[in-house]
Amino acid sequence: MGISEKAKKAKSAAILLSAVKTDMKNSALSKIAEQLKSRSSEIIAANQKDLRLAEKNKIVKPLLKRLKFDEGKIADVCAGIESLIKLDDPVGKTLSATELDMGLNLYKVSCPIGVIGVVFESRPDALVQISTLCLKSGNAVLLKGGSEAANTNKILAKVIADATSEKAEGRSEKIPVGWIQLLETRQHVAEMLKQDDYIDLVIPRGSNEFVRYIMNHTNIPVLGHAEGICHVYVDGQADINMAVKIAVDSKCQYVAVCNAVETLLVDSKIAKEFLPKVKAVFDAKNVELRGCKKTRSIIKVKPAMEKDWWTEYLDYILSLKVVDGVDEAIEHINHYGSHHTDAIVTQVQETAERFLDLVDSAGVFWNCSTRFSDGYRYGLGAEVGISTTKIHARGPVGLEGLVIYKWKLLGSGQIVADYADGRRKFSHRVL
Amino acid sequence: MGISEKAKKAKSAAILLSAVKTDMKNSALSKIAEQLKSRSSEIIAANQKDLRLAEKNKIVKPLLKRLKFDEGKIADVCAGIESLIKLDDPVGKTLSATELDMGLNLYKVSCPIGVIGVVFESRPDALVQISTLCLKSGNAVLLKGGSEAANTNKILAKVIADATSEKAEGRSEKIPVGWIQLLETRQHVAEMLKQDDYIDLVIPRGSNEFVRYIMNHTNIPVLGHAEGICHVYVDGQADINMAVKIAVDSKCQYVAVCNAVETLLVDSKIAKEFLPKVKAVFDAKNVELRGCKKTRSIIKVKPAMEKDWWTEYLDYILSLKVVDGVDEAIEHINHYGSHHTDAIVTQVQETAERFLDLVDSAGVFWNCSTRFSDGYRYGLGAEVGISTTKIHARGPVGLEGLVIYKWKLLGSGQIVADYADGRRKFSHRVL
Repeated sequence: MGISEKAKKAKSAAILLSAVKTDMKNSALSKIAEQLKSRSSEIIAANQKDLRLAEKNKIVKPLLKRLKFDEGKIADVCAGIESLIKLDDPVGKTLSATELDMGLNLYKVSCPIGVIGVVFESRPDALVQISTLCLKSGNAVLLKGGSEAANTNKILAKVIADATSEKAEGRSEKIPVGWIQLLETRQHVAEMLKQDDYIDLVIPRGSNEFVRYIMNHTNIPVLGHAEGICHVYVDGQADINMAVKIAVDSKCQYVAVCNAVETLLVDSKIAKEFLPKVKAVFDAKNVELRGCKKTRSIIKVKPAMEKDWWTEYLDYILSLKVVDGVDEAIEHINHYGSHHTDAIVTQVQETAERFLDLVDSAGVFWNCSTRFSDGYRYGLGAEVGISTTKIHARGPVGLEGLVIYKWKLLGSGQIVADYADGRRKFSHRVL
Repeated sequence: MGISEKAKKAKSAAILLSAVKTDMKNSALSKIAEQLKSRSSEIIAANQKDLRLAEKNKIVKPLLKRLKFDEGKIADVCAGIESLIKLDDPVGKTLSATELDMGLNLYKVSCPIGVIGVVFESRPDALVQISTLCLKSGNAVLLKGGSEAANTNKILAKVIADATSEKAEGRSEKIPVGWIQLLETRQHVAEMLKQDDYIDLVIPRGSNEFVRYIMNHTNIPVLGHAEGICHVYVDGQADINMAVKIAVDSKCQYVAVCNAVETLLVDSKIAKEFLPKVKAVFDAKNVELRGCKKTRSIIKVKPAMEKDWWTEYLDYILSLKVVDGVDEAIEHINHYGSHHTDAIVTQVQETAERFLDLVDSAGVFWNCSTRFSDGYRYGLGAEVGISTTKIHARGPVGLEGLVIYKWKLLGSGQIVADYADGRRKFSHRVL
C-alpha cells in the first residue's frame, strides 16, 4: 500500500474514530494491554532479531539499551496504558456555550485533530505510548520509528491493530480499522510530508537536523522542537548553595536530553563567590567548562566562543557567562535560547517575576532544575513530544495537545437576514 | 527600515508588551480611539487621496465603497475599540495549577503569542480592528493592507503608533514603541514570510490564490482559510419550508463571503418535493443553479460538472446534488468541502448529531444558516480571521486565538535527582 493510500485510510478512520465513545476507547486500550502481554513471546522474538542486527552493525551501547524490549518493558508500557485509561477523555468537552438568540445556541466542543503523523526515535516503547495517546484522544496515526527497531515496531503495530480490530462483545460500535498505520522507510517519511490533504499535524522527534528537515519540507503544521538550549541564571541575590545544586542537577542529572542546561548565566554581583564553588563540583563530575572573558578572569576554564551560546551540547560540557543583572540574562536567553526551558535562581520575588514574564520560553522556572520540564513530571500522564512553537501547544504535549474544537450551532430555522435587517437581535448570553 | 529590521523591532517590543498590565493596555486603547477622532480630518484627507487614485484607476464600485473611510467609519471603529476595552484580558489567566511536590508548584498561564504578521484586504477599518485586537492580547503586529488603501493605512498606523507612544500620566510603565509596524509593498510581504526568527504567526486574509501563496511560501505557522466551500444538506426528514429559507439565506444574504453556501445537498427521499420549491425562490433571485444528473431528472437546470463541487463561486451560482441520506452527504462534504462551515436541516436529532459529529469542519450547524459563522455573530467581539486549520484555533478567531500559554514552575531548590533516586515523590495535586 502506498503512503498516500495509507494516509487516506487513516483519514477515513479518523472521521469515525472522532465519534467513538470513551468507554469503547478505554476497552480497546485494555485489549491492547492484554494482547501485548499475551503475545509477548512474538514481540520479544522480533526484538531479539533487531538486537542481533544492531550488534552486528556495532551500534553503541546506550542505543542498544534503548532498543531492548523485554518482559519488563512490556509490563511498563502496559502500566502506562492502565494510567492512560484512567485519564479524562479530552474529547467532547463543552469549552463554552452561548445563547445567540432564543432557540439558537452555540457550543464550542473539543474534538480530535484528525490524523497525526509521528516520527520517533529508536525506543519501541514510544510506538505504544504514542499510538495509545492518539487512540484515547480519538486521532488516527501514521507512525515511523527508528529503523534499528523495524522488526519490533512491525509486530507492535500489528498487535495493536489486531487488538482494536475486533468488536467488543455485544456492541455494534467498534474502533475503525486503519486508524494505525506503520511507515517503514525514510522515503515513506518524505512521502508522508506531502500528504497535507490527509494529515493534519506532524510531530517529529529526534535529532536537531532531522526535526529541521521535517519543518522545512512540509506544508502540514509541525509540533515539536529542534533543540533544547536551556539556561540557568544565577541572580546576585541567589542562595548560593541552592544555585550550585540546581546548576549541577540541570546539567548532570541526564546530559543527553533536551531539558538539560547548556549555558549558565551568572550575575556579576555574585560571580566571584559562586564560580569557584560551582567549578569545584563540575570538576568532580568531569564537566568541561567554557567561559566568557569575565568568567575566565575569576576561574581557569577554556574560552567560550560565540558559537558556544548557540550550541546544544547534549554532553558533559557547559558554557558560562557573566552578565550584569536579570535584564542582560533575559536578553541573552531570548536571543540565543531555543524557547524550551529556562530557570532563574534568586531569593527576590520581584526579580523572579520579571524573569518569568519576560523570558519567552515554554517553561520558565524559579528556584528549581530545568530537568523538571517533562510531561510525566508535570503530571500530564504521558507526552507525545515537547513543543517550542508558539501556537496550539507549548512545552510537554499530552492528551490535551492532541485535540482541537469545533463550533456546533443548534438552531430552529434562524436566518441571518433577520438579524441584518434588525428584525431580530443577538442576546449573546453565556449558558 | 528593512523588513527584517521591522520584524526585529516588533519582537523586542513584543517581549515587553507581554508583561504590560490590563489597565495600561485599556488606557492605550482609549487613547487610540481619542486620537482617531481628534485627527479625523487628516485621516479623511488621506482617504480622499486613495479614493481619487482608485477612481482614476477605474476600480469597481463595491471596492470603492469598502475603501471609503469617513466620519461614520471612524465612529464605527471607535465603537469597536470601546467594546474591545470591555472584553476580558485574555493574558495572564491561570489555566491550570498543580502542586508537583511540597513547595514546587506548576502553573499554566496564558500569554501573548508574540509577533503576528497580518495581511489583509482593502478595508482600512481592518487595520484598526486587527491592531487593537493585537494590542489588547499583548501581541506586536506587522500589518500589510490593500495597496489601494496605502495612504489611509499609513496615516492610521501613524495615529495608532503616536497614540500609544506616550506615557500615561503618572505611570512609569508604557506601551513599548515598535509594537505596530506597517509594510507597504508586496515585496515586503515576501520578505516578511522569511522572518521566522522574529514572527510567530501569519494571518493572511484575501483571495484563495493569495492565501495559498502565503501558506506555500513560509515556515511560519499560518492561521486562516484559503476558501469557503460551504454546504447545506437537506435531510429526508427536514421541514421543507425551513430548508428553503435556510438554503436561500445561506446563498443570497451576501454571496461574496466565505460562509455563503456553494453546494446544496438534497436527500433523494425529499428531492422531488423540495427541489421545485427551492428552484422557484432561487429563480426569483436570479441564482444560477447547476445540478447533478438526478437533480436534472426533477428540475430543469444547467449540469454540474465535477469541477463545480470544488468551486467557491462567491457569486449568484449554486450547485445541487441529490444524495442517498446523511452518510453520503457527510462523505461528500468531507471530500469536497473546505472544512469551513456546513449545515444540516432535519427534524431528527439522531441524524443531526451524526452530521455534527462526523462532518470535519470548523462550524457544524443544525437548522440554521451557514452565514452565522462569524466572530461578531458568535459573540466573540471581533475576529482577526476565520481558520480552517486543525490546530490552535478553528473557525472565527477572536482574542482567545491570539494567546498561548507558558508553564511557570515555582520551586524552593528542588532537583530532579531526588525524584529519580526515589528520595522524593511527586504529589501531582490539583491546586
